[in-house]
Amino acid sequence: MKSYQVVALAGGVGAARFLDGLTRVIAPERVYIIGNTADDAEIHGLHISPDLDTVTYTLAGIANPEHGWGIRGDSFRCLEALRRLGADTWFQLGDKDLATHLYRTQRLHQGATLAEVTAEITRALKVRSTIVPMSNERVRARICTASGELEFQTYFVKRHARDRVVAMRFEGASEAEPAPGILNAIAKAEAIILCPSNPFISIGPILSIPGIRGALRRRRDHVAAISPIVGGRALKGPAAKMMKSLKLTPSAFEVARLYQDFVGVFVLDEVDRKHAVKVQSLGMRAVVTNTIMSGLGERKALAKAVIREL
Amino acid sequence: MKSYQVVALAGGVGAARFLDGLTRVIAPERVYIIGNTADDAEIHGLHISPDLDTVTYTLAGIANPEHGWGIRGDSFRCLEALRRLGADTWFQLGDKDLATHLYRTQRLHQGATLAEVTAEITRALKVRSTIVPMSNERVRARICTASGELEFQTYFVKRHARDRVVAMRFEGASEAEPAPGILNAIAKAEAIILCPSNPFISIGPILSIPGIRGALRRRRDHVAAISPIVGGRALKGPAAKMMKSLKLTPSAFEVARLYQDFVGVFVLDEVDRKHAVKVQSLGMRAVVTNTIMSGLGERKALAKAVIREL
Repeated sequence: MKSYQVVALAGGVGAARFLDGLTRVIAPERVYIIGNTADDAEIHGLHISPDLDTVTYTLAGIANPEHGWGIRGDSFRCLEALRRLGADTWFQLGDKDLATHLYRTQRLHQGATLAEVTAEITRALKVRSTIVPMSNERVRARICTASGELEFQTYFVKRHARDRVVAMRFEGASEAEPAPGILNAIAKAEAIILCPSNPFISIGPILSIPGIRGALRRRRDHVAAISPIVGGRALKGPAAKMMKSLKLTPSAFEVARLYQDFVGVFVLDEVDRKHAVKVQSLGMRAVVTNTIMSGLGERKALAKAVIREL
Repeated sequence: MKSYQVVALAGGVGAARFLDGLTRVIAPERVYIIGNTADDAEIHGLHISPDLDTVTYTLAGIANPEHGWGIRGDSFRCLEALRRLGADTWFQLGDKDLATHLYRTQRLHQGATLAEVTAEITRALKVRSTIVPMSNERVRARICTASGELEFQTYFVKRHARDRVVAMRFEGASEAEPAPGILNAIAKAEAIILCPSNPFISIGPILSIPGIRGALRRRRDHVAAISPIVGGRALKGPAAKMMKSLKLTPSAFEVARLYQDFVGVFVLDEVDRKHAVKVQSLGMRAVVTNTIMSGLGERKALAKAVIREL
C-alpha cells in the first residue's frame, strides 16, 4: 500500500489555504488529506460536501479567492431561478459548483462510496493530492444551541453562526468507520498535520470516527497541530465564540489542551508566544511562527516551518 | 369542479407555439393543457419533463425563441462543469432550466405528485393556464429501432432521431391513470384540441393512458386535431420519418386516419387542401387554413380558426 509523506486533517477554508502552501512545498502526490464531512448537507436534494469541495477547488486552482469557498467567477443563475420557484436559497450554490453536487449525488445514488466519488472528482479536476472523506458513512454535526438543536448548515450559513453553542454531537459517528486507507496512511506517514481548522466542528468530527484518534495517539511524536486561534480570535469562523460559549478561554493554549493526548508538536502564532511555555507543560513541543496566511508566501512559509519540525 | 373552455393535448415545441397563440385569443385561465410525459427522463439524477417545461416556459414568456425549448438567454456553465467531471452531457441543460429540474426532483422525492409539482412551477412562473401531466404515474416511451430498443431521449437527442423506428411502446401506460381532473375536463370542455404534435410520440402516449381515448370519443364532435404534417413533411421533429418507417405515407390524411375514432374536426394546411375530401370521407369535418406558425400573428390566426369550428 502506498505511503504518504504527510497526512493532513482538514476542515474548510483555513485548511485549504494551508494545504495550498503545503502542496507547493512538498510533492502534492505525497499529501493525503482527510476531509471533514460532518457539515455535509442535503440541499435541493443534492449531497453537498462543503469541506471536501473547498479543499478540492483550492488545490485544483479554481477556488474563489475572495470567499475561499465556491468556484472563481461562478454565476448564480440556477439559484436565482430556484428562488423564483419559491425554493429556500440561503445556501449559495454557483452554477459551476452545482455540477460537483449533481455529479456526486448521482454517483452516490448509483452506489459509489463518497470516497470513490471524491477520487473521481479530484482526478477530473487534476488535483494531485489524495483527498478522502473521513468516512464513507453518513455523519452529521448537530449543533445544540439556546434555540434548540440545529443542522450544521442551518446553524452556520442560514443563521450566520449567531446562536450560542452549548454542545454538539456527531450523529452517526459512533457507528461509522474511517474511509478505507485512512488508518494505514496515518500509521505510515512521515508527518501528520492538523490544519488550522475549527477544533469542534472541523477536526472534532474527524476525531469522533472510531479508530482515528487512537491511530493518531500511536504517532503522537509525528503529529503537529496548527492553532486556529491567534491572539484569542479565530482566523476564520466561529471557533473562538464557540470556545467561550463552551466555557473555555479562547486561546491557542486551550486548543492545545484539547489535543494533548495525540499531538506532539503545537504550532502557535508569534502573537501567542507567551503561551509556548504552557503548551510545553502539556508535553508538547511548541513551535512559534507566523500562522496568518495572508498570501501564498505566508502559506508556503508556514508549511515549511511545520514540515521542518516533524 | 371547474370547467374549461378548451382542453389541449400537447407535446413540445409545436404544441407550445400553438398554445401561445391560443392563450392570446381566449382567456388563458380557460385553457387546460394535458402534457405528454412519456419523454420524461432521469438525467444527472434529475427528473426532466421536457414537454411540460417547453409548454410552461412558452406560456410564461421565458422560452428560448430560437430552439423553442429551454429558457431565453440561459447559460450552460453547470453543463460545462459536468463535462469537465466526465459526465455525459449530450442533453442540454441550461443553468436557469436546471432550477426547474432540481425543484421538481426534490418535490417528487418529498412525495408530491408530478401534477402538484407542475402546478407549483406554473404558478411560480405566473402561467395562467392549467398544465397537467397526462399521468402522475411513470410512463416512458421506448423506441424500437433497427439498432434495438432505445430510451426516448437517447433516440431523440443523443442519436438525433436518426435510427429507423419500427415500433414504440409506452412502458407503464397500461397501469397508469390520467392525472386527477383530466377526464372531467375533457367531459366538460367546450372544445378539445390536439395540438400539432407528433402523433406517435407526443399525442400517442397521452392516448395510451387508459380512459383518455374513450373520454375523447364521447366528445368526438368537439374534438379538433391540427395536422403536424404539412405537405408530407413534419413541421418539427421526426413525425414524417417515423410514418415512413412505420410503412405509412407521411401525409395529413394518414394522421387523420390515426385519429378517426375520436376526432370530429381535422385541420389541414392550405398546401394539403387536396386531402380535404379524403379526410371528410373518414367522417370528419376538414378545415383548411394556414397552419405554419411563423410568427405570433399566425399562431393567433390558427387558434382563432380552430376555435371558430368547435
